[in-house]
Amino acid sequence: MTGPAAPDPAFERKVRESFGRQRAMATLGARLVRVAPGEVDVALPFREDLTQQHGFLHGGIVTAVVDSACGYAALSLMPAGTAVLTVEFKVNLVSPARGERFLARGRVVRPGRTLMVCAGEMIVEGAGPEQVVALMQATMMVIRDREGLAD
Amino acid sequence: MTGPAAPDPAFERKVRESFGRQRAMATLGARLVRVAPGEVDVALPFREDLTQQHGFLHGGIVTAVVDSACGYAALSLMPAGTAVLTVEFKVNLVSPARGERFLARGRVVRPGRTLMVCAGEMIVEGAGPEQVVALMQATMMVIRDREGLAD
Amino acid sequence: MTGPAAPDPAFERKVRESFGRQRAMATLGARLVRVAPGEVDVALPFREDLTQQHGFLHGGIVTAVVDSACGYAALSLMPAGTAVLTVEFKVNLVSPARGERFLARGRVVRPGRTLMVCAGEMIVEGAGPEQVVALMQATMMVIRDREGLAD
Amino acid sequence: MTGPAAPDPAFERKVRESFGRQRAMATLGARLVRVAPGEVDVALPFREDLTQQHGFLHGGIVTAVVDSACGYAALSLMPAGTAVLTVEFKVNLVSPARGERFLARGRVVRPGRTLMVCAGEMIVEGAGPEQVVALMQATMMVIRDREGLAD
Repeated sequence: MTGPAAPDPAFERKVRESFGRQRAMATLGARLVRVAPGEVDVALPFREDLTQQHGFLHGGIVTAVVDSACGYAALSLMPAGTAVLTVEFKVNLVSPARGERFLARGRVVRPGRTLMVCAGEMIVEGAGPEQVVALMQATMMVIRDREGLAD
Repeated sequence: MTGPAAPDPAFERKVRESFGRQRAMATLGARLVRVAPGEVDVALPFREDLTQQHGFLHGGIVTAVVDSACGYAALSLMPAGTAVLTVEFKVNLVSPARGERFLARGRVVRPGRTLMVCAGEMIVEGAGPEQVVALMQATMMVIRDREGLAD
Repeated sequence: MTGPAAPDPAFERKVRESFGRQRAMATLGARLVRVAPGEVDVALPFREDLTQQHGFLHGGIVTAVVDSACGYAALSLMPAGTAVLTVEFKVNLVSPARGERFLARGRVVRPGRTLMVCAGEMIVEGAGPEQVVALMQATMMVIRDREGLAD
Repeated sequence: MTGPAAPDPAFERKVRESFGRQRAMATLGARLVRVAPGEVDVALPFREDLTQQHGFLHGGIVTAVVDSACGYAALSLMPAGTAVLTVEFKVNLVSPARGERFLARGRVVRPGRTLMVCAGEMIVEGAGPEQVVALMQATMMVIRDREGLAD
């Protein structure tokens, strides 16, 4: 099975450079680990200063990283000269984010000219059978020449 | 109009102490500014190291703070001896998070014995007519004596 | 307080005619009862042939009517010559849909050129303090000259 | 790969009988076509009296059927003597529901003692490469001896 083709041959560089400008990802310690057409993975090591009141990784931090993975999965399928914005997402936090290292996976499940629907998840790496922490369904928007936004 | 009564008279202290244990909130610079039964406000100053690629506050960071506001709004209506966990939320990012100071408001719109439905928003403070950045609809769960969780 | 202005002066007729073409609404017995700029109400009488397994109105039927209310609230703020499509919605079913007559209310909470964010709810009419059955947060899209769609 | 085991050996009969009591499903013409542990499929033929204003199947009707598929997928994994209620769902309507026959698939992606997270979709049957109409992420609740509900 092959995935969708990326209309912009420079998609990987575009995604990596734009991710590099997301200062929030650097602040959280998130690292882009894989870019393919419609698929982006971001690694996040556990950090005590990102926890909620019970000592697990905060669900909002989990969400921030999965959102970036989904957004860049979408951007990887957009034409040159466009930018991506998150319209909305829905997240189920399905188990406490316990572990040493997490991986956020974003996938485009429905590409479109204006909107792209993505599925995302956060898993605990190295937890034997894959342990899912969060599941996302998100809508990303293709921005064309508006407000001077560029990716 | 009066809101719901808090079954735990120590609700404010419980919320403030639990928020104080959310190390992610301290890391993001978020500060609890108001606690009332079913209503919690959290302030977040803009910080460049929390931005996305276009220089706005990252939508996931916005979400993390609104999630905490909603979760603690729910906790404020829970009986003594319980804890709160986020089941899920859905967020629309309705305008770019530009501004100097943001306020996240969480409100319980439907209290329940096991689940509480909350509405949350992030606004830009001091932006004249209130400028909304994000809208959340969330489901919070009342945890009773499970896994040793306590708030 | 005044709501937003409708850019199409014929907005009410446009909404009423388009609702009249939604054969699903007629099949469910739903009736358009109020159209204002950014606000649409749809009434739905209880019917036993629309129930789920416990005898309440089926949550999906509730959703269908709130979706139409939200979609037409959005259409009421769209320019002439456009059509509306639902991008996505999220619904919390907050209490069993018991009652004789229900009212779905759709409101635009964030109008936009391409997307409109709406809040919707279904209440039980005549249930004293308003009894809420469902809460929706939805994203509607403005369709311009695509696929020959018109409203 | 094997799926989860059903704790109630009579799960299939329980699901079929409960679906049979959903009068809304009969009214819409939906038919239960497959029941496995954590997986339920429901077929829905196109009907003109269930359309929206452009002649496609109404998104709310699509949602109602996917909701039932997800709810019964969840019920199939619940212990004997429990009932299922939908807590909430989020749906992306990803393409117009054109076609003669649709299939709703509900799958439990995260079983739990109190809550079950499901993924659902509606596809057009016989449309070559599978044509997806809608994607759902839903939360279902296990009801134990409350309000006399039974499935």
